[in-house]
Amino acid sequence: MTAADGETTRSVTDPIPPAPRPLTDLRADGHAAVDWAADYLGRVGELPVLARVKPGEIRAALPASAPDEPEPFADVLRDLDEIILPGITHWQHPRYFAYFATSSSEPAIVAELLAAALNSVSILWRTAPAATELEGVVLDWVAQLLGLPGGWHGHIEDSASTATMAALIAAREATGRDLVLCSEQAHSSVQKGARMTGMRLRKVAVDDRQRMLTDDLSDLDQAAVIVATVGTTASTAVDDIDTVGRLCGRTGTWMHVDAAYAGAAMVCPEFRWAFAGIERADSLVVNAHKWMLTPQDCSLLWSRRPDDLRAAFSLTPEYLRTPDAEDALSISEYGPALGRRFRALKLWAVLRCYGRSGLQQHIRHGVALAQKFEVWVSAEDGWEVAAPRDFSVVCFRHDGSDVHNERLMHAVNETGEIFISHARLNGRLVLRLAIGHPSTTEADIARAWDLLRAQARRL
Amino acid sequence: MTAADGETTRSVTDPIPPAPRPLTDLRADGHAAVDWAADYLGRVGELPVLARVKPGEIRAALPASAPDEPEPFADVLRDLDEIILPGITHWQHPRYFAYFATSSSEPAIVAELLAAALNSVSILWRTAPAATELEGVVLDWVAQLLGLPGGWHGHIEDSASTATMAALIAAREATGRDLVLCSEQAHSSVQKGARMTGMRLRKVAVDDRQRMLTDDLSDLDQAAVIVATVGTTASTAVDDIDTVGRLCGRTGTWMHVDAAYAGAAMVCPEFRWAFAGIERADSLVVNAHKWMLTPQDCSLLWSRRPDDLRAAFSLTPEYLRTPDAEDALSISEYGPALGRRFRALKLWAVLRCYGRSGLQQHIRHGVALAQKFEVWVSAEDGWEVAAPRDFSVVCFRHDGSDVHNERLMHAVNETGEIFISHARLNGRLVLRLAIGHPSTTEADIARAWDLLRAQARRL
Repeated sequence: MTAADGETTRSVTDPIPPAPRPLTDLRADGHAAVDWAADYLGRVGELPVLARVKPGEIRAALPASAPDEPEPFADVLRDLDEIILPGITHWQHPRYFAYFATSSSEPAIVAELLAAALNSVSILWRTAPAATELEGVVLDWVAQLLGLPGGWHGHIEDSASTATMAALIAAREATGRDLVLCSEQAHSSVQKGARMTGMRLRKVAVDDRQRMLTDDLSDLDQAAVIVATVGTTASTAVDDIDTVGRLCGRTGTWMHVDAAYAGAAMVCPEFRWAFAGIERADSLVVNAHKWMLTPQDCSLLWSRRPDDLRAAFSLTPEYLRTPDAEDALSISEYGPALGRRFRALKLWAVLRCYGRSGLQQHIRHGVALAQKFEVWVSAEDGWEVAAPRDFSVVCFRHDGSDVHNERLMHAVNETGEIFISHARLNGRLVLRLAIGHPSTTEADIARAWDLLRAQARRL
Repeated sequence: MTAADGETTRSVTDPIPPAPRPLTDLRADGHAAVDWAADYLGRVGELPVLARVKPGEIRAALPASAPDEPEPFADVLRDLDEIILPGITHWQHPRYFAYFATSSSEPAIVAELLAAALNSVSILWRTAPAATELEGVVLDWVAQLLGLPGGWHGHIEDSASTATMAALIAAREATGRDLVLCSEQAHSSVQKGARMTGMRLRKVAVDDRQRMLTDDLSDLDQAAVIVATVGTTASTAVDDIDTVGRLCGRTGTWMHVDAAYAGAAMVCPEFRWAFAGIERADSLVVNAHKWMLTPQDCSLLWSRRPDDLRAAFSLTPEYLRTPDAEDALSISEYGPALGRRFRALKLWAVLRCYGRSGLQQHIRHGVALAQKFEVWVSAEDGWEVAAPRDFSVVCFRHDGSDVHNERLMHAVNETGEIFISHARLNGRLVLRLAIGHPSTTEADIARAWDLLRAQARRL
């Protein structure tokens, strides 16, 4: 069979059929969307945080097939309001306190539109010189802001899951070993990464503050990589990366540091205690899309051993061959993906429109709110703070069973006023209040606290 | 050490420090950006397609550090023009003919701004019910448009590299085997995926039209997966997926179909010959960000064996536990990443604002242009069409050595008028003209052809 089989109606001498025009006016619809976005961010605090739909409800409200003929963009915007919005859990809500509160911001929102217009695709340096080099530059900027050693190679991955998987792969390539170590409190992406790459995993025990026990590393010399965490997902615990890094120096083990959440705090010198020993890291991931005002997806991966990344990921077929000097600059040589979008643009806009001082203010604002909440909880009879509060996440608990606390969580979440999540620490279920939005005020955490106490009394 | 170490200046009883405000006015700067994008798309055809910068030039033009204090967004937009734009290779240019021409489009550009404003993060169904369900719905829509069997599970990955890697992992999990087969003409991401996952790879020979030789599959029964390609990267050759799929049915081998580029063409029935046997595929990847008017990144991965994907990727730690019915809907259970951005929104906007008819028109427009160019080349003395032209990519060659053709490519690319790339087929270097933009006209390909002939005469 050939392509000609189905093309009985058209001759090559026929006129070229016209290109389609979408029913979209970039200016008019674009301006309407900008206004929609500004209105949305102005009113998001009045919407229920956690979507109140049942599984399948949004799907059922949508047509079963794409339209045959073009529809105007205004209809898309209308359906965004009427069909999609009720199914949105509002991550931009000032009382979104679940998992890790992550924020988009005005400069990044505007930059994403520009990135989509340019559609600069980084497969090779030459296909996107500016996107490639800007990515390197803004990663250098952030490295300086976080107090990292000079000379590390940085690039952007979609998620910390991918970044950590990439580190595992590079470590296997560099060491010839296939064992992965991480603590019991490490993020699930480490286990997933080991599974995806076909590597073995052993979880190291933690102390009562959820920090990796550095005297449980007798097999470190057999490990390709150990993943140490600065700011664990459950309780933001900080592994002792200085000690782990020293041990890795002796055993030739790659140390990957997962600071997906807490890394952003290092923009403030008063939190740098958590990065003591970071110069020993072989790779490091920090999510700009968590606590650095950048929307999904923008996970920053640095390595002080870029040649090992390149050895693991470089693979240039003939159709991608360019001069050697260009090859070395192509970011696809340092990670899993070949085609990459222009993610650096939004990070550049955030760094410029906030500046170092704005990023510091953002971190300090969030931590101060968390401290305030922590004080309230610890001062109240019948409540306890369940883990050290080092950053902007408070783990806490009401007296009573796990089931009682889980009910309490569901009760407050069902009000639509706040959204919190849970974790398990030392065998007990604890509640988590994670702060991260610049729009969150003291009144918002007071509302959360009032609601928690009221529901605890009611249950 | 504790967090308190550095915090000597602040007491918890002090007032909460204010949150930062970026120097960005979402309305004013957003409207300016929309106008910038519309102006850019209006004038991109006048800019040199391939960036004319040297490696390091963009980096050198940017400050070495982030600013300490906030800067206005207007400065970012100014620097986008003055510093970034000269380093952009214009993928949106009507005479971008390299690799695969990929297009962004107005509805998608506007939708990306909305997605960034919502910042709906799909980690679990409940964190993004609408994003999760819309993703399922639009993947169903596209499946229908492409004539796929009903009932497949679809979701979006960032790139075909990731999607193919995911298929390899699922296949290993499902079969307990670790051998990957693909043809010599398969995309380099298959080899990269095998390397990343720690699987073995064997490349199957191809015929003189670059199609996988289905009689070179004696070890199929040992393979976890075979990757068959519909539209290879070098020459858009089409593997016989019907035969490969039948053989896989006997050996229990997973067939992954890579239709990253050509899959979009299946929206037109006259190209469906290339998908004969697609119902036998266990998984399939089609990049909406290649030939479906959607900007990076939007790679569509379907599987008729979603339970096998879930078995490979599901991993729910306590802090992510939600009711079982919700877990099954969480897309993070079906692929590598946990956090995922709202990529479905732009695809929804594209499908609605173009409709089935617009997408068909887009494909037919591109193929007709490619046919026209093919006719010109084949009619001209001293030139040859170097591979069957089944879709919108023409592989061709001027009489003379590989070096001569490579020089010719560099010469035309250096003019800034067009950007073409090359491949190696049957041991010879060939030039590729890849068409994919709705803005490309017959005049644009005529200009390319004139330029090629002029430079060939000059050399």
